[in-house]
Amino acid sequence: MDVDLDFGDDGLVPVVAQDADSGDVLMLAYADREAVERTRETGRAHYYSRSRDELWEKGATSGHTQEIEEVRVDCDADALLYVVDQTGGACHTGYESCFHRTLDGDVVGEKVFDPDETY
Amino acid sequence: MDVDLDFGDDGLVPVVAQDADSGDVLMLAYADREAVERTRETGRAHYYSRSRDELWEKGATSGHTQEIEEVRVDCDADALLYVVDQTGGACHTGYESCFHRTLDGDVVGEKVFDPDETY
Repeated sequence: MDVDLDFGDDGLVPVVAQDADSGDVLMLAYADREAVERTRETGRAHYYSRSRDELWEKGATSGHTQEIEEVRVDCDADALLYVVDQTGGACHTGYESCFHRTLDGDVVGEKVFDPDETY
Repeated sequence: MDVDLDFGDDGLVPVVAQDADSGDVLMLAYADREAVERTRETGRAHYYSRSRDELWEKGATSGHTQEIEEVRVDCDADALLYVVDQTGGACHTGYESCFHRTLDGDVVGEKVFDPDETY
């Protein structure tokens, strides 16, 4: 890659995933250098799971993969945007987007699958 | 606010700003509790500047303010989405979006102002 990414002190960059068709912001996660390289090599979104402390291919368990349309980098080269074709829903709770609630707790997003049948 | 936000060890949450009209992802920044409260009180996007180590009202210097349409929170309550009406461009380099480059360094975003005349 030509842009020199700034992975910071923890070796991670935040990644915004956006649906290529709807433009919806689907989720925010993190990637280390390996996850970015795997994303480019495979064309499928990879992240670094901070809770499991390991490389994480989105949808490897659920089947809700993200095919990469484009990876963009921000002006400071310390954040990424994955523009993706999302299969199923991005959120493990069954919603299309992880950002399905307002700050008041009102649900405004769309539920697209039943997590009990998926995981 | 009804959702109990997780500001983590550093007291910050990442915030994605999205243009309400175009759906474009404009920038990624961070907010502390005060920035979130000021955003809700004023209806204008506030962040926490990690480089200047202070509360930051977007556009206070440039005039390129962000009027808040909605604030959404993700499933883990550790990331926010500001849906905004962006005046001018979000990026200090003059582009509409900070995510105006691919990983290869190709410029794919639109330049909307001259930073030399703004700052």
